Amino acid sequence: LVCRSNISVYGSWKWGPNGHGAILLVNCDSESTYKKTLDSEVDEISKVSDLQDMSKMILRTNGPAELPEGYKLTMHISQTTSESVRVFRPQTNVQKDNVWKHKLLKLFLKDYIMVVGTDMLTQKVPYLGGKTELEFFVEGLHFPDRDFDGLITINLSLLEPCGKDFPETPVFTDKVVFHVSPWIMTPNTLKPVEVYVCSTNDNYSFLKSIKNLVEKCGYKLKICHEYMNRGDRWMQDELEFGYIDSPHHQFPVVLDSPRDGDLQDFPYESILGPDFGYVTRHALNEKVSSLDSFGNLEVSPPVTVNGKSYPLGRILIGVAFPTATRGRNMTQVVQDFLWAQKVQEPIALYSDWLVVGHVDEFMTFVPAPDRKKFRLLLASPDAGYKVFKSLQNNGHGKAEMFPGLPEAISVNEILSDKKLQAENRYVQNCIDWNRDVLKKELGLDDEDIIDLPILFKVLEEKTYPRAVAYYPDMVNMIVLGDQLGIPKPFGPKVNGRCALETEACSLLEPLGLKCTFIDDLTPYHKLLGEVHCGSNVLREPSPFKWWNLEL
Amino acid sequence: LVCRSNISVYGSWKWGPNGHGAILLVNCDSESTYKKTLDSEVDEISKVSDLQDMSKMILRTNGPAELPEGYKLTMHISQTTSESVRVFRPQTNVQKDNVWKHKLLKLFLKDYIMVVGTDMLTQKVPYLGGKTELEFFVEGLHFPDRDFDGLITINLSLLEPCGKDFPETPVFTDKVVFHVSPWIMTPNTLKPVEVYVCSTNDNYSFLKSIKNLVEKCGYKLKICHEYMNRGDRWMQDELEFGYIDSPHHQFPVVLDSPRDGDLQDFPYESILGPDFGYVTRHALNEKVSSLDSFGNLEVSPPVTVNGKSYPLGRILIGVAFPTATRGRNMTQVVQDFLWAQKVQEPIALYSDWLVVGHVDEFMTFVPAPDRKKFRLLLASPDAGYKVFKSLQNNGHGKAEMFPGLPEAISVNEILSDKKLQAENRYVQNCIDWNRDVLKKELGLDDEDIIDLPILFKVLEEKTYPRAVAYYPDMVNMIVLGDQLGIPKPFGPKVNGRCALETEACSLLEPLGLKCTFIDDLTPYHKLLGEVHCGSNVLREPSPFKWWNLEL
Repeated sequence: LVCRSNISVYGSWKWGPNGHGAILLVNCDSESTYKKTLDSEVDEISKVSDLQDMSKMILRTNGPAELPEGYKLTMHISQTTSESVRVFRPQTNVQKDNVWKHKLLKLFLKDYIMVVGTDMLTQKVPYLGGKTELEFFVEGLHFPDRDFDGLITINLSLLEPCGKDFPETPVFTDKVVFHVSPWIMTPNTLKPVEVYVCSTNDNYSFLKSIKNLVEKCGYKLKICHEYMNRGDRWMQDELEFGYIDSPHHQFPVVLDSPRDGDLQDFPYESILGPDFGYVTRHALNEKVSSLDSFGNLEVSPPVTVNGKSYPLGRILIGVAFPTATRGRNMTQVVQDFLWAQKVQEPIALYSDWLVVGHVDEFMTFVPAPDRKKFRLLLASPDAGYKVFKSLQNNGHGKAEMFPGLPEAISVNEILSDKKLQAENRYVQNCIDWNRDVLKKELGLDDEDIIDLPILFKVLEEKTYPRAVAYYPDMVNMIVLGDQLGIPKPFGPKVNGRCALETEACSLLEPLGLKCTFIDDLTPYHKLLGEVHCGSNVLREPSPFKWWNLEL
Repeated sequence: LVCRSNISVYGSWKWGPNGHGAILLVNCDSESTYKKTLDSEVDEISKVSDLQDMSKMILRTNGPAELPEGYKLTMHISQTTSESVRVFRPQTNVQKDNVWKHKLLKLFLKDYIMVVGTDMLTQKVPYLGGKTELEFFVEGLHFPDRDFDGLITINLSLLEPCGKDFPETPVFTDKVVFHVSPWIMTPNTLKPVEVYVCSTNDNYSFLKSIKNLVEKCGYKLKICHEYMNRGDRWMQDELEFGYIDSPHHQFPVVLDSPRDGDLQDFPYESILGPDFGYVTRHALNEKVSSLDSFGNLEVSPPVTVNGKSYPLGRILIGVAFPTATRGRNMTQVVQDFLWAQKVQEPIALYSDWLVVGHVDEFMTFVPAPDRKKFRLLLASPDAGYKVFKSLQNNGHGKAEMFPGLPEAISVNEILSDKKLQAENRYVQNCIDWNRDVLKKELGLDDEDIIDLPILFKVLEEKTYPRAVAYYPDMVNMIVLGDQLGIPKPFGPKVNGRCALETEACSLLEPLGLKCTFIDDLTPYHKLLGEVHCGSNVLREPSPFKWWNLEL
């Protein structure tokens, strides 16, 4: 049996390095196509490569050459379990010659039959006699969710005959318990594999900057072209990359957002493929809101909180809080899915104070050589005002924000805007609330946090004032190892250099990070997003194995 | 806050004697009627006795006489949580005089308003100033189930104003986690309180025997009369008694079976009442079968299995197994409910081999002074044949089963019936399977099991042979402390005494048990049930507190 340590498993499942129990993958990549054979009415596995996505289960028997007359072996599962698993075995009645001919004819075609699964709770399995091993292949069908804890039990019974008029009765049963791999997100501190970005009719120079940065780092770049994205450039919002993992196999799985903008076909059409899985959740009886975009779904690096360790980090989502009756929220089915994965226990932040309402508008994580091996970066109006006041105090009050652009405005003018100050006091309160939650739930000290100078402005919405970044929101960056692609803030120039860039570099470069400022003003910032919103990064899985968690 | 040890609780919940966290009851008894006040549109608690079913939650504040201008306290819960909980508080704006007048007018009427609950996720709560305590009352609405783990979080935030154009932002949040009490079953070893039985137009002498036995023991007897039972005498099958428990209050709760025979109105109409709760589950898209009757739902006494302790015992249900594709099963929603209670982890036995298909047809538990403080009694065809062979060997071959009755048949005739022997071999196989499961899952030795001599016969059903007891099934007894009410087996007489009764007494009396044999032949046995099927026992709750379980 394929299990976590090649030690035989028990009929139970236990978390942790001293735990036990078998592991299963949801076969959610695109080879998982089954055809119904008309004459035999059994499900078949159509491509042999699918077997790799399944867990091998071996039935070891050590007995007589044949079972006594009337005895038989039967595999069985419960009704509930049958929704979440299928077990296949090679057809034993295919002659060797035929198998060989098959191989010559079509290298990847083999014949497997379903033993138990949907509408098949029990079936006889062959007894081959003597000391033999019979191979089965077990396929997961569902991720853990609100109504499924991820555990699957498969039973095997020896049945005894009881005369011709009576059914057989079981005399011995063995069972194996599998846990379906959760869907696992990858924090910014993991190594990038490929960067995803959209090409639109107005982002040529932005795309070129991203391409240069990605090429310099040596990662792959995937461009989603306009025929697919239909002008929807928010690559971060339509999908979230994660992976599933088992001792025998792992592969990336994209979680498709219920947001469904014009990019909606991209995850299914262009990402789902052999060894790239796909999963989605559809909102029930609710409208999706901007908070259902996955710029509002992030994950922290590994943390330890009051002695409790989260080696895969913790998921972060933004919700309406605590004024929920008027607010927007992430749809319940997606929240349920995220909580049910268990291995990256989610934290709810308060993001509904923003017009767009995504956590990536006020926070991100970057790698660091010291302390917890990362820093939390927070947008900070206070830090922003500090920069502007310092400029004024040092005689640069007439220097202009957005220099040379129609919206240019002097440091003095910004500092004398009382309305803007009030708005930023409100924004700072909202961010401080999240700062407290993050410190508590991630076990962070103030020294683990860097405040980036960002001002916001508040748009008067009908029911509720909500905020957007006043100039390109530097915290909404792309993190590629030690290379950061940061929205170019267009700050006041001092000695020919942007004072906001200077400040950001002075905060980040001491950590060994390299800052590249990318102009996203027209194609992203003015549409209320930035570099991070407009990109996505597929990363390597964590080296930590989820089943070694102590839960 | 009412919690398990009057020590202040934490914002988390942990099982075990060293655990922590608050406890909540589902307010499922019949005082829980709410009226919608037309003018104020708030829910009110209409009877003060309801408060006892709720958990008291105290907000302790120690601060200035008044909060600074614009600050406020707000209680809030999540959308999901709002399905399972309501929080009330006394109306603070009612003048003392009015309260007093109310009390004179109607002793049990008080005015409470709902703070959070369904359609009310957040609401301001008053700040009374100085060092004060504000009382809230928390009411559970749902039992743990497949999609609800029983945990409920209630948050309280202090909100800070941010100028007149902006909403308040939270500056501090505290939370309390409650666990809803599971529904807990009571094994035969717990002290009886009241015996329930039906009166029909043909069970007068049976009823009299039960009445005599119950009166002798000093318990209460509740008779369900014919206008209510409409001839449906299977009191065991329509309902199961259990209870819910918290440190401040406990009360019995009846689980109403989806069986719904003519007794179906009895649990709701006659058992539900003040301090007697009610819960049911309805089958979805499935037909209910005989396996949904609660003669097929029992619970073991406390056991320890391989070092794992089950101080509240383990639930036992009967299912189709392992030939499930042809078999009957207990409906999934009831199984889900039972598993979700967690504190009496269920065991699935194989009962579909019986025509009626209930576990109480082949097993029960009786108290014992030694070993594990109980014995498992199993019906045993092998033990039955042993008695009959011994009678034959001792010259009683002509003695008659059912003496003096039209169906009288001699020991010799029974022993020469090859078909009956084959049928009983099959039945013994089915029971042996369950014996093995029970030994393994309850940690029993052979010395913990007593085999009662019962023969079965197999009825030829169209698709599947199934069994019924050949003579009154002694294992289907009522257990009232050390008094046993056993179906009178009408066995062959030796020296004027029934040999089967003699055998049963010789097995049970050494344990200090007293056997009363009750004639249920015509009104129960011939309708395929016995004493246990026709009765039910409300028992005292276990002294063990469910929250002290190590889960």
